[in-house]
Amino acid sequence: MTDIAMIKAARDRIGNHARRTPLLSSPFLDEIAGRRLFVKAECLQLTGSFKFRGAWSAISALDEETRGKGVIAFSSGNHAQGVALAARMHGIPAVIIMPSDAPNLKIENTRAYGAEVVLYDRQNEDRDAIGERLSAERNLTLIRPFDEPHVVAGQGTVGLELAEQADEHGIARAEVLVPCGGGGLTAGIALALEAEAPGLVVRPCEPDGFDDTARSLAAGRIERNAAMGGSICDAILTPSPGHVTFPITSRLCGPGLVVSDDEAARAMVLAFTRLKIVVEPGAAVALAAALFRQKEIMGDAVIAVASGGNVDPGFFSETLRRYR
Amino acid sequence: MTDIAMIKAARDRIGNHARRTPLLSSPFLDEIAGRRLFVKAECLQLTGSFKFRGAWSAISALDEETRGKGVIAFSSGNHAQGVALAARMHGIPAVIIMPSDAPNLKIENTRAYGAEVVLYDRQNEDRDAIGERLSAERNLTLIRPFDEPHVVAGQGTVGLELAEQADEHGIARAEVLVPCGGGGLTAGIALALEAEAPGLVVRPCEPDGFDDTARSLAAGRIERNAAMGGSICDAILTPSPGHVTFPITSRLCGPGLVVSDDEAARAMVLAFTRLKIVVEPGAAVALAAALFRQKEIMGDAVIAVASGGNVDPGFFSETLRRYR
Repeated sequence: MTDIAMIKAARDRIGNHARRTPLLSSPFLDEIAGRRLFVKAECLQLTGSFKFRGAWSAISALDEETRGKGVIAFSSGNHAQGVALAARMHGIPAVIIMPSDAPNLKIENTRAYGAEVVLYDRQNEDRDAIGERLSAERNLTLIRPFDEPHVVAGQGTVGLELAEQADEHGIARAEVLVPCGGGGLTAGIALALEAEAPGLVVRPCEPDGFDDTARSLAAGRIERNAAMGGSICDAILTPSPGHVTFPITSRLCGPGLVVSDDEAARAMVLAFTRLKIVVEPGAAVALAAALFRQKEIMGDAVIAVASGGNVDPGFFSETLRRYR
Repeated sequence: MTDIAMIKAARDRIGNHARRTPLLSSPFLDEIAGRRLFVKAECLQLTGSFKFRGAWSAISALDEETRGKGVIAFSSGNHAQGVALAARMHGIPAVIIMPSDAPNLKIENTRAYGAEVVLYDRQNEDRDAIGERLSAERNLTLIRPFDEPHVVAGQGTVGLELAEQADEHGIARAEVLVPCGGGGLTAGIALALEAEAPGLVVRPCEPDGFDDTARSLAAGRIERNAAMGGSICDAILTPSPGHVTFPITSRLCGPGLVVSDDEAARAMVLAFTRLKIVVEPGAAVALAAALFRQKEIMGDAVIAVASGGNVDPGFFSETLRRYR
């Protein structure tokens, strides 16, 4: 199980290979939020999302012989790109299994980061069977997107940075809002802050209809979402909290916050106009909660993690046009 | 005249009031540029542009009694916002004189940063006369946008950070491409690098038709632009290099680089897709030169300064739609 020692070890293995992302703010956003608001701009991370940290952590934790044979991942999104680049920087092969109807840009990017992309037909092929066959044939190690202790440890390095940055800004107590899919980032940050900045309390943020973590925290047991799609927040639509992550989030996190797709879109536009960063919809739910759920938040200061920026230019253009 | 001691003194006065902006990169941009490409994301600075640094430097350099009476500036753009916020953070009044046909958003933002905005009619009123009257009545100090040694010193703090960041990345020799209007940022960075990282050579970047600095450097004397408008790169359309800045840039800078509006727009879109930052057209000319003028650039690495991100959402949306 991930603990603070694993997170610090992950930070040491990551070293300068990942970026220490800045903590941004704007008086205009403070005014909307009704308190001081800080945004951890993890969209500026390599590959455009925090997923690179977890991928690097998991790959670098493998013994050299195992690692040399290569890694495999299932993903059509940010995890794919994180694993692909971390593998290339380690000089090892990566196979990424993606649905053949994934956006072309994501497939191209994953290939451009040096991975071998294996496409499968969602209707007629069994993704897991393809993965098992390839793993067995080539002795590839599976890198899971969140339910894996070393991945959680890598995401926890965001929390180590936040503890330092909050201290630099004189913030001793605040809620830390984190976009939550399977809970890898949420759990990692919560563990890091428990040890390094106990006055900072994590609250998971999710879109309407995909509030499995909020409901699971309230119920004290893992609950599932009814739907698998239909929100613009594609990066964080997972069926349920993970078995590695939920025990951590249920022990450490405050109640979940839930925002609408419309609020996530408005937060994207405000991040554009006020912070000059590009945030994808799923990564904007924490900023949306900070801006539009102020009565559900405690304290004079709040920190929102903007966890990624991999958004289609056409969609972003249309969102800017509609919400400016 | 600005020198390295003034730049270091400006840095000490600025302290933690301005942001140390990150140096970003992407393997996709390296590939287009044909070399390692680093982008100094000064669009993430407070008020969305480097102008905040120069404004803070000039205001903080005033003696306390003079400063307490307040400052005045002429600007419809980034300098207005920089002076307004720096004045507010010093707890002093600021008057910003803006044309009445300036974009509403810029007027509103400048007011929201706490400045008193005085509008004038470009056709029927004399801006300078209004400024002189107000200054005399209230003993306000004029903060010039570039042709002022303390402003150049403030912009030079970008160069101090670049010297450190280049060293962290192991870059001893590179060209540093800087968007150039009146030359305050260009001159400040050039002075800082001369002292702190002499292997880094500044090259001013301008849009087609507004290459006054490139022509002035080639001619060895100040030359003027024929037109005053007609490029999307509004932030850097100045009539000619300054009398404070030109002696510095002519002594220290390499030849100017000139890009088209179309190339600046394509660079904006690539900064969006590959770096997840918002860059305004005038601030994208250096990145455009790094990407699309590679034969005119020397060395294995190049650094481009992205100097601001204050771009109208409608224009950005349309640019994304057109160039994605």
